[in-house]
Amino acid sequence: MSILSQRALRAPASPIRKLEPLARQAAERGLTIFHLNIGQPDIPTPPAFLQQARLEPGAVLAYSPSVGLYPYRKALAKYYASLGMPVEEKDILVTTGGSEALLFCLMALCDAGDEVITPEPYYPNYGAFANMAGATLVPLPTRIEDGFRLPPSEAFAAAITPRTRAVLLCNPSNPTGALYSREALEGVLKLCREHGIMLICDEVYRDFVYGEQRPMSALSLPGAGEHCVIIDSLSKRFSACGARLGCIISLRSELIDATTRFAMSRLSPPTLGQLGGIGVLEDPGPFVSSMISEFRSRRDVLMEELRRLPGVFAPEAQGAFYLMTRLPVDSSERFCSWLLSDFSHEGQTVMLAPGPGFYRTPGSGQDEVRIAYVLAEKPLRRAVELLGIALKAYPGRVEPVSRSF
Amino acid sequence: MSILSQRALRAPASPIRKLEPLARQAAERGLTIFHLNIGQPDIPTPPAFLQQARLEPGAVLAYSPSVGLYPYRKALAKYYASLGMPVEEKDILVTTGGSEALLFCLMALCDAGDEVITPEPYYPNYGAFANMAGATLVPLPTRIEDGFRLPPSEAFAAAITPRTRAVLLCNPSNPTGALYSREALEGVLKLCREHGIMLICDEVYRDFVYGEQRPMSALSLPGAGEHCVIIDSLSKRFSACGARLGCIISLRSELIDATTRFAMSRLSPPTLGQLGGIGVLEDPGPFVSSMISEFRSRRDVLMEELRRLPGVFAPEAQGAFYLMTRLPVDSSERFCSWLLSDFSHEGQTVMLAPGPGFYRTPGSGQDEVRIAYVLAEKPLRRAVELLGIALKAYPGRVEPVSRSF
Repeated sequence: MSILSQRALRAPASPIRKLEPLARQAAERGLTIFHLNIGQPDIPTPPAFLQQARLEPGAVLAYSPSVGLYPYRKALAKYYASLGMPVEEKDILVTTGGSEALLFCLMALCDAGDEVITPEPYYPNYGAFANMAGATLVPLPTRIEDGFRLPPSEAFAAAITPRTRAVLLCNPSNPTGALYSREALEGVLKLCREHGIMLICDEVYRDFVYGEQRPMSALSLPGAGEHCVIIDSLSKRFSACGARLGCIISLRSELIDATTRFAMSRLSPPTLGQLGGIGVLEDPGPFVSSMISEFRSRRDVLMEELRRLPGVFAPEAQGAFYLMTRLPVDSSERFCSWLLSDFSHEGQTVMLAPGPGFYRTPGSGQDEVRIAYVLAEKPLRRAVELLGIALKAYPGRVEPVSRSF
Repeated sequence: MSILSQRALRAPASPIRKLEPLARQAAERGLTIFHLNIGQPDIPTPPAFLQQARLEPGAVLAYSPSVGLYPYRKALAKYYASLGMPVEEKDILVTTGGSEALLFCLMALCDAGDEVITPEPYYPNYGAFANMAGATLVPLPTRIEDGFRLPPSEAFAAAITPRTRAVLLCNPSNPTGALYSREALEGVLKLCREHGIMLICDEVYRDFVYGEQRPMSALSLPGAGEHCVIIDSLSKRFSACGARLGCIISLRSELIDATTRFAMSRLSPPTLGQLGGIGVLEDPGPFVSSMISEFRSRRDVLMEELRRLPGVFAPEAQGAFYLMTRLPVDSSERFCSWLLSDFSHEGQTVMLAPGPGFYRTPGSGQDEVRIAYVLAEKPLRRAVELLGIALKAYPGRVEPVSRSF
């Protein structure tokens, strides 16, 4: 008999990291790989963060309170208030990354067999956290043709069962790059209120919006208080992924109480990152706005270059720094492997995340890839150029006219 | 209907932190509190750790690999090899504290309703992690009169059911201060092998031993390979609790694979702490041995002072920096509250962790407290002196002769 639990046997490997062995072999053959596959930005962390995320000799690197250092929570509350969110320190639980925030929320809301509805394609770790909590993720299909916009309330309503405990959204969306409209969010929130379930809104890319819409939170919508929980993180906002700092925000005090009891068991989120976070939150300077300008330029470059490629369909990238893109290929998994194992141009290739890893519905995403535009302009242009050259050479190329959309 | 899961409703608050509101009020009244209640040592973190746990301006504080930075795992493997543990990098998963290591192990081994046997009294968060994994902790009573030594194999055997998935030990023990003998460990390991279950050995206090026995790991026992998993942490060994770095070690590759899949979903353990860890593991210098000397002296001071107190029964503290101690009181919970709310001597009082929080069996630990000897000699002597003065004044004092032991 296996020593492993059913939960462990079911636990998925990260589809985004699955190609890493091929990438390692390609690098060993001397190839340069342009990484458009992972969400690790290249933007230097603000110096104020790095300078304060340290202790001088003689100090004790001690636990912080389980809920986070008070000055850090206070600085977070001030930032959220500036976005129109009615949040005080007591409504914030500091977590070890947005990842732990998601895990704690799903564990606090779901028992084994409970369901969480999420638009598909979705961030694959949602499925991993749901599995750890014993819950089932119920995917609600969205369409690349209309930019993966949020399905109408009726579609959510049709997916609700007696086991539904929450709707989980990522806004702006990883992996699609969609930004949900205020009206669409209000529709889902209304539905959650009617059914007495929670809206979990993962807003770790909140600042990464490139159009007219300003960064906003679902928690600032009228009536959101009792039915909304926000997942947030420092990772992307301050290019501090390795700090492992996130938080749960909710006005629903029993949810903060329950997740705080989970948090007490793991003692403390990382202390050094919180010190850095206090530094940048108290005086963010122009860091965020100049980073967003940089990503807006990259977004423009990406769209411009992708549109040159015959047979490629890319919806408008509206937020985050990802874009699900349709390619004229038989299988994006085969194509992404082939890029690493069989293709090169002038000693270079490009790495992408295959679409099916972002879907639960079998057969979906076969001709899609997720592009993370985390490179500066020049390497980004070259990476998309490589993609175009590869698409011409790929033996499994299919002509888009032959497909039904 | 509550929005919370049964898991959330059952999640316990930390019994160790439950008295904090009373402590805050006492501090607000101007009292000095000697903290013997929590395991936060006062030893400065090694300067080499703090100096390397930082990045210079211009750097990106990036994710590490999900399994941990390679040089960090390599340095860990070297340290474990020096203890006679047959461990390579591939057998080590770096986690966010020993806490995450425990949670991942229990999740990988247990489904809802499965059982884990652990000697009682035990570290309360074991119960919290078991609850998060849906598992049941089955306590096996140990006795203060014989220094909380490990029960005989027959007692473990009698507790095994078809749902038993593991035995969980903490060695040296938090909260009792017991150090388990090699023979006792071999007995439990043999039993685990016979029943095809795992021995989870939490060794975060491995270095904190004060007698003849050298620091050792259950994984160095003959035949441990296939049935043993070790939980470890930097927190205590390098006085770096706030770094949040632990690890899972096992030669059972499917367990490392499964916990790695959990680890991929949370992306990365904290990066800065790993950099500090590389610094101290590669060149630990005399830090650990001088810290252990300091704790040995404190242990001696604690034993000497406790033995002066009439009616107090303290077994010999052998390891870690805790000691479960029997007091002549009606209720250690009432007594610990009373110390904060009604007692003071020259503007000072002492804070202890009440015994019942370390037991699951109802009624157990009512006359016990856990003492964490994390103070230097002088404040430690004064803290125990305060305990003696308080015991004389406490209205709920009972005479030990009237009790049956």
